[in-house]
Amino acid sequence: MQISELSRRSGVAVATVKYYLREGLLPEGARVSATRSEYDDAHLRRLALIRALIGVGGLGVAGAKAVLDEIDDPPESLHEMIGSAYTRLPGAVPGAGAAPEGAADRASLLLRDLGWDAAERECADEVAGLARAIGAIDAAGLELSREDLAAYGRAMGVVAQREVQRTPSESVPAAVRYVVLGTVLVEPLLLVLRRLAHVETSQRLLDAPPP
Amino acid sequence: MQISELSRRSGVAVATVKYYLREGLLPEGARVSATRSEYDDAHLRRLALIRALIGVGGLGVAGAKAVLDEIDDPPESLHEMIGSAYTRLPGAVPGAGAAPEGAADRASLLLRDLGWDAAERECADEVAGLARAIGAIDAAGLELSREDLAAYGRAMGVVAQREVQRTPSESVPAAVRYVVLGTVLVEPLLLVLRRLAHVETSQRLLDAPPP
Repeated sequence: MQISELSRRSGVAVATVKYYLREGLLPEGARVSATRSEYDDAHLRRLALIRALIGVGGLGVAGAKAVLDEIDDPPESLHEMIGSAYTRLPGAVPGAGAAPEGAADRASLLLRDLGWDAAERECADEVAGLARAIGAIDAAGLELSREDLAAYGRAMGVVAQREVQRTPSESVPAAVRYVVLGTVLVEPLLLVLRRLAHVETSQRLLDAPPP
Repeated sequence: MQISELSRRSGVAVATVKYYLREGLLPEGARVSATRSEYDDAHLRRLALIRALIGVGGLGVAGAKAVLDEIDDPPESLHEMIGSAYTRLPGAVPGAGAAPEGAADRASLLLRDLGWDAAERECADEVAGLARAIGAIDAAGLELSREDLAAYGRAMGVVAQREVQRTPSESVPAAVRYVVLGTVLVEPLLLVLRRLAHVETSQRLLDAPPP
């Protein structure tokens, strides 16, 4: 199909499609003349993926490109993938800089309470993010105990275990795609589900007959 | 203390403190002369909160102001709070617009599978976000089954139940502060814990002795 049909079928304006082509997010079509290229269903799927990453995924163009590069050119082994899957993504915790010392200690203690030695060893950036998140919680006067933090960790451990079990095993590229997309696109899903669960649980308490 | 000491102790530049004052995020100090105001520990705590919301919370100044307004001027009753707690926050799912019809149907089905009738009724915006999130996941070719979605919902239900149980009950303002801050500042904590759990679980599988 030509670019106009690609635009119509994907819902993406021609100018935006051309922008994605220039930025290298979308592969070029097959050239049929000096001014025309042919696109196919793979381009349609790719556009849908780009829009998902930039829309719900909340990534900018550079972030989307980093994710697509990881999927297009995946590491060679599962071992390399585990370490690198997140390095091209924006960190889970916005902001930068060192966390207050107390927060870094609480982060280490939490990882030890959970027994997550490998994670502590392999993911310096995300561990630093954990410390910053704890630091912000403390700074805001939101009091979360050691047990509160561990409970959050265990809940995320349950989520992660199911996800790791369901990771495709037929090839490293398939696994990388699942992990990377599963990270970027499932994060907003989890957060909205938590908010909806809050409202549901609170409403039930309010509606419950008095004891 | 004067503004220079407030700046030094909080780590926030004087120009930024003045900006927060102008924008109404930080209440004014007590005027002691035409050009000087006195600030106290409440201002220090407020600055720490602002930095947490803007930093780890990932909010812009307008978003931080909306959160602070909710805390400073909370709804009168718990019932009002449940509905409104999220309306001033940015939605959990970035992006806008209607989700594809199939995605809206999957979102409704999910809420029915979970039995979350109150949430479906009370939170139109977040339900729309849920549909958008599912739409993006589908568009990206990440295949999540009905059971996968329900498993995510149940996991977030466990998190939310514990949080609702631990909501302060001494006053509505205390509850609102807990809910609002618990939403903005715990979201990044959950996401980084999930990533760390992924690495931990994957690494253990890789390291496990062959069967």
